[in-house]
Amino acid sequence: MKVLQNEFAVLYEKQRLKIEDKISRVLINRKPESLYEPCSYIMQSGGKRLRPLLVLFSARACGGEFKNAYNAAAAVELLHNFTLVHDDIMDNADKRRGRVTTHKKYDLSTAILTGDNLLAVAYLTLLKDCRENDKSVLATFTQGVIEVCEGQSLDKDFEVRKNVSLAEYLEMINKKTAALLEVCCSVGAQIGGGSKDKIKALSLFGRNLGIAFQLQDDLLDITAKEAEFGKIIGGDLVEGKKTFLFIRALEKARGKDKTKLLEVIKNKGIQKSQVGEYRDIYHRLGVLEETEGEIARYTRLALKSLKAVEDEKARGALEWLANSLINRNK
Amino acid sequence: MKVLQNEFAVLYEKQRLKIEDKISRVLINRKPESLYEPCSYIMQSGGKRLRPLLVLFSARACGGEFKNAYNAAAAVELLHNFTLVHDDIMDNADKRRGRVTTHKKYDLSTAILTGDNLLAVAYLTLLKDCRENDKSVLATFTQGVIEVCEGQSLDKDFEVRKNVSLAEYLEMINKKTAALLEVCCSVGAQIGGGSKDKIKALSLFGRNLGIAFQLQDDLLDITAKEAEFGKIIGGDLVEGKKTFLFIRALEKARGKDKTKLLEVIKNKGIQKSQVGEYRDIYHRLGVLEETEGEIARYTRLALKSLKAVEDEKARGALEWLANSLINRNK
Repeated sequence: MKVLQNEFAVLYEKQRLKIEDKISRVLINRKPESLYEPCSYIMQSGGKRLRPLLVLFSARACGGEFKNAYNAAAAVELLHNFTLVHDDIMDNADKRRGRVTTHKKYDLSTAILTGDNLLAVAYLTLLKDCRENDKSVLATFTQGVIEVCEGQSLDKDFEVRKNVSLAEYLEMINKKTAALLEVCCSVGAQIGGGSKDKIKALSLFGRNLGIAFQLQDDLLDITAKEAEFGKIIGGDLVEGKKTFLFIRALEKARGKDKTKLLEVIKNKGIQKSQVGEYRDIYHRLGVLEETEGEIARYTRLALKSLKAVEDEKARGALEWLANSLINRNK
Repeated sequence: MKVLQNEFAVLYEKQRLKIEDKISRVLINRKPESLYEPCSYIMQSGGKRLRPLLVLFSARACGGEFKNAYNAAAAVELLHNFTLVHDDIMDNADKRRGRVTTHKKYDLSTAILTGDNLLAVAYLTLLKDCRENDKSVLATFTQGVIEVCEGQSLDKDFEVRKNVSLAEYLEMINKKTAALLEVCCSVGAQIGGGSKDKIKALSLFGRNLGIAFQLQDDLLDITAKEAEFGKIIGGDLVEGKKTFLFIRALEKARGKDKTKLLEVIKNKGIQKSQVGEYRDIYHRLGVLEETEGEIARYTRLALKSLKAVEDEKARGALEWLANSLINRNK
């Protein structure tokens, strides 16, 4: 009996190592580092890996093979660690498995996002072990969750950075805002039984619409009418946010204007009373028109994709939706 | 053209109302209220419902019908609101759509959980619109995420409640701990191609093992050896946690012992130096033996389910795993 017990302990240890390896590979080479480094930190903090082992042995118990269940095994451990990270925040815990908890080692925001992302990665990993062919809806959906988490992480990074390039900003809103609109269109198209080309076209529509939508958001912050807007005008400037307008203005500005703009970064925002002054700078530098131009360009790109849609009513509705978003005043 | 525009606006509004209805129904009659009330709060705060409409129109754009995509439509809005709740925490935002943000109206923990749960409900809702038959792996997985969130919510509730019954406590650990172990076994069994009966048997194994596992956790907190345990002994008492041992002791105690136990609730914990005194009370009342008895009972129940497993090696491994957990010292 003692030998048999030992045999299982050896089996457990062997499979545990394979799971460790799978978990490492799931998280490796992913960006942003500010998100995946804390994910790896919690995942590498040890633990019995009880849950993955249960998956493997349960698969075997039904005549299945370990090799078909490693992803699912890693997924439950990722899910488990998602709950640990968030629970530690709620419990205000200092230590976990003898190490400093995620929110204490990093900060609250990082820990919330780390947990969220682990959950999404869990789904993503699980899906690799699902045998059905048309699991693509869920894969698309999951990819969306991950991109949103990643985009939010970039956004938080940018808050504390002095320099953010326009390309970086566009990458961020592409993930934080546009990815989810793409997911919406793609999921709808897939459920609607669309061809590959149709799904791709609608995805592209959603993606470009998302970018136009966010740029419009940036623009409205400074050009909207207070009564219609529902938020304070120039709120982004007050909070020192590096929007498309701000980054572009900083690129173009010289002399006094540049000094003024750099003050926003230095002071992490401006007073409400200064908003008019900064609107004038934006006007002078032509960034309002430029942003309008970009919104129009992305909208055109979006609408172009809709040519693939034969159904006139559906195309009309999507065109209308796109135009309503671009012409909104709040 | 004006008429056509209006036609789409009417279509949008009609479908928007259907989506509102779907979202309400997704969240209705779910418990605990402390979790679903804030979920409804954020979901009922308005918004354009742009994302669900994109799902519907994209489905139509591919020749699909609206009626096959309402769940998916609600799912993307749930997902979106998950991100809003968490983002508002990270941004320390006061207002959202003109209303107080979730973490300001409730508290940080509630807002984190609300977001997490909305994500899980999103998956759950999405799955209703997936047409494949064997989507059950993902459904199982998602159900697990939800139960974990719900269990954590109950746990937080219990922290501030004076009275928690043994039945309530068991319900809580059933969700917070046991559900995920059930998911592990069920997912593994499904991937392994198990029969319905086999999947059910392994699920039950995981569920009962999970309860035994948590009761063992409660017991070890007071009976473990400091050097092996890695945590301080009696930590649950120090933090004033209402564990199985504590609740059962309170049920049985009379006189001085009862007064002492009530002090733990009143003072929200005890001093480290008092742990020995409380261990003596547990001894006197026989709750340590009683907990051991419950652990053995749930373990037996778990092991009984394994009779359905023919493969000797797999059954042996699962039995070994169960016994290792029950005989662990940390």
